[in-house]
Amino acid sequence: MSIDRLQQLIRNKKNPTVAGLDPRPEYVPPEILEACTKQYGETLEAAAEAYYIFNCGLIDALCDVVPAVKPQSAYYEMLSWEGVRTLKRTIDYAKEKGLYVICDAKRNDIGSTAEAYSEAYLGQVQVGSQSLVPFGSDSMTVNAYLGSDGIKPFIQTCVREGKSIFALVKTSNPSSGELQDLLAGDRELYVAVGDLLARIARDTIGESGYSCVGAVVGATYPSDMWKLRQRLEHTFFLVPGYGAQGGSAADVASAFDQYGHGAIINSSRAIMCAWKKTGQNGADYQEAARAEAIRMRDEIRQYVTVL
Amino acid sequence: MSIDRLQQLIRNKKNPTVAGLDPRPEYVPPEILEACTKQYGETLEAAAEAYYIFNCGLIDALCDVVPAVKPQSAYYEMLSWEGVRTLKRTIDYAKEKGLYVICDAKRNDIGSTAEAYSEAYLGQVQVGSQSLVPFGSDSMTVNAYLGSDGIKPFIQTCVREGKSIFALVKTSNPSSGELQDLLAGDRELYVAVGDLLARIARDTIGESGYSCVGAVVGATYPSDMWKLRQRLEHTFFLVPGYGAQGGSAADVASAFDQYGHGAIINSSRAIMCAWKKTGQNGADYQEAARAEAIRMRDEIRQYVTVL
Repeated sequence: MSIDRLQQLIRNKKNPTVAGLDPRPEYVPPEILEACTKQYGETLEAAAEAYYIFNCGLIDALCDVVPAVKPQSAYYEMLSWEGVRTLKRTIDYAKEKGLYVICDAKRNDIGSTAEAYSEAYLGQVQVGSQSLVPFGSDSMTVNAYLGSDGIKPFIQTCVREGKSIFALVKTSNPSSGELQDLLAGDRELYVAVGDLLARIARDTIGESGYSCVGAVVGATYPSDMWKLRQRLEHTFFLVPGYGAQGGSAADVASAFDQYGHGAIINSSRAIMCAWKKTGQNGADYQEAARAEAIRMRDEIRQYVTVL
Repeated sequence: MSIDRLQQLIRNKKNPTVAGLDPRPEYVPPEILEACTKQYGETLEAAAEAYYIFNCGLIDALCDVVPAVKPQSAYYEMLSWEGVRTLKRTIDYAKEKGLYVICDAKRNDIGSTAEAYSEAYLGQVQVGSQSLVPFGSDSMTVNAYLGSDGIKPFIQTCVREGKSIFALVKTSNPSSGELQDLLAGDRELYVAVGDLLARIARDTIGESGYSCVGAVVGATYPSDMWKLRQRLEHTFFLVPGYGAQGGSAADVASAFDQYGHGAIINSSRAIMCAWKKTGQNGADYQEAARAEAIRMRDEIRQYVTVL
C-alpha cells in the first residue's frame, strides 16, 4: 500500500514533514525569473519555465531531508496549460529524486467523473493500444462533499495502483467551522466526514496500520485534531496550517499516534521564501530552503517520536 | 453582471439548457480519432487533438441552439497538460462563437489558493508588465466545504471581471445525501450551504434579479430542488442529472421561477453521443448532436415559460 511507503520514507528520513511547492512569481528568485522572461518574453510560458527551474532547485536541495513534496495545483493552473505542464514535469522530477508526491488538487465530482480525476492524477489512461500515465503522482487531495460514491473511484485506483488520497476533513482556514463544525446529531460535520471516510476505506489498511484514505486536518484547530486522532486510528493525517497560517509545532503534536506515526506536516511558504530573509536576493535560495526544512524537522521532532 | 448575460442569452435563444462537453475517447467519432492517432501516434497529444476537433464540430453545430457550453475539466485533465491545452482552446473557440462558457472544475481551497483558482479560470495573471488570461471562462463551478473565506475570493473576481460561479449545493449523485442531507439544527446541510452562499453574494444581485453566485442543484432530487427554489430567490441554478442520470423534464421544471427564469439545465452524454444511435458510425455527429439539443430544448420548454 502506498501509505506504507510514505510512512517508510518518513522513518528513513526521520522527518514527518512535507514541503509544499506552491510557486508564485514573487517567490521565485529574480535571477531565474529574469532569465526566463528574457528567453520567452513576458508570457505564461516564461513564468511556467521559471517555476520549473525553481522547483527543481528546491527538490535538489530538499530531497535528502524531506520524504515528500506537495505541489498545490492552483498555482500551476494559474499559468493555464503551460503551468499544468510544469506541474507534470515537477511531479516527474520529484519522483526521480525518490520523493513521495502529493498533488494538492482537492478534486471532487460524481462517480464517473471522480473516476476520470483518479485516473488523471493516480492512474493510467488508454489511447489505442497504449496505457499512458497523465500525471502519475503518488497521492492527491480530494473533497468529500459528494459522499461515498464520489470517493470510491479514487479508492479503487489507489488499491489498483498502490496510491493514496487525503480527503478534506477539518480545514485550516478561519471560516472552516461555518459548515464543518455544524452539529448533525451528536457529531460535528467534520467528524461525520472523518467517520464516513474511515468506513469506506476499512478494507485498505496496510502494514503501517493506515488505510489508503487519509484526512486533511488543519494545524490551526489543535483540539479538533486531537479529537480526530483519538477517533480515527487507521487514518493518516496530512496537516496544513503550520507556520505562516499560525499552527505551532506543539499544535501539530496531537496529529501523531503514540508511536509518532500517522501524520505528515506541510510547510510551503516558509521553505520556498526562506531566501527572502538572508539578504542575498535569492542567490542562496537552495541553502536557505534546506536550512528552513531542517529547522522545521528538528522543531517538530522535539514533540514527536520518529523512529 | 455576468449572470445577467447568461439570462439574456437564454432569452435570446429561448433555450434554458447548456451542452456539456465531457469528451472521452469512446465518444469521439472513430474517423476523427483515427486521423489524430495517424498524425500523432497513440499519444495523449493525439487524443487531445481529437477532443479539440470533436468539440469544435459540436460547438459549430450547437452555437445557434444553446446559450452555453460546460466543459468538464476532469476529462481534459485525464490527458495531462495536453488535455488542459484542449480545454483552453475549447473555451476560446466557444467564446468566439458567442457562447457562455461554464468551466466545470469544482475547485475549492483556503482563501489565498481560492484566489489563485479564481484568477486562473475567471481572471488574469500578471507576468512582468503583461496582464494575461489563463483560461478566460465566463463561469466555473466551485465546492463550498471550506466556508465563506474559500468562496469570497471567487466573488471578488466575479465582481471585478463580470463573471459568475456555481457552488455545489445539492448534487445529483446517488450518495449525495450522505453528508448533504445531514440535519444541522432545523436545516439540512445543503440548505445551510445554499443559505450561506446567498448571504455572502447578496451585494452582487444584477438586473436579472440573480447574484453572481449560483448553485448546482441536481435534477435527481426534485423535491429538494423545489425547496431550494422557494428559499433562494436570487440564486441561479445550474442543474445536472437530466437525461442519462435519470432526471426528467418534469423534474427540472421546479428549478425555474414563476417567470421561467433562474436556471439552466445541463445535458452532456445524450448530445455528445447522439451519433451512436443513427447507425452512421459518427459521420453525422454534428447533425445528431444538433437534433438532440433541439429535442431537449423543446421538451424542457413544454414545462417552462421562456420569454
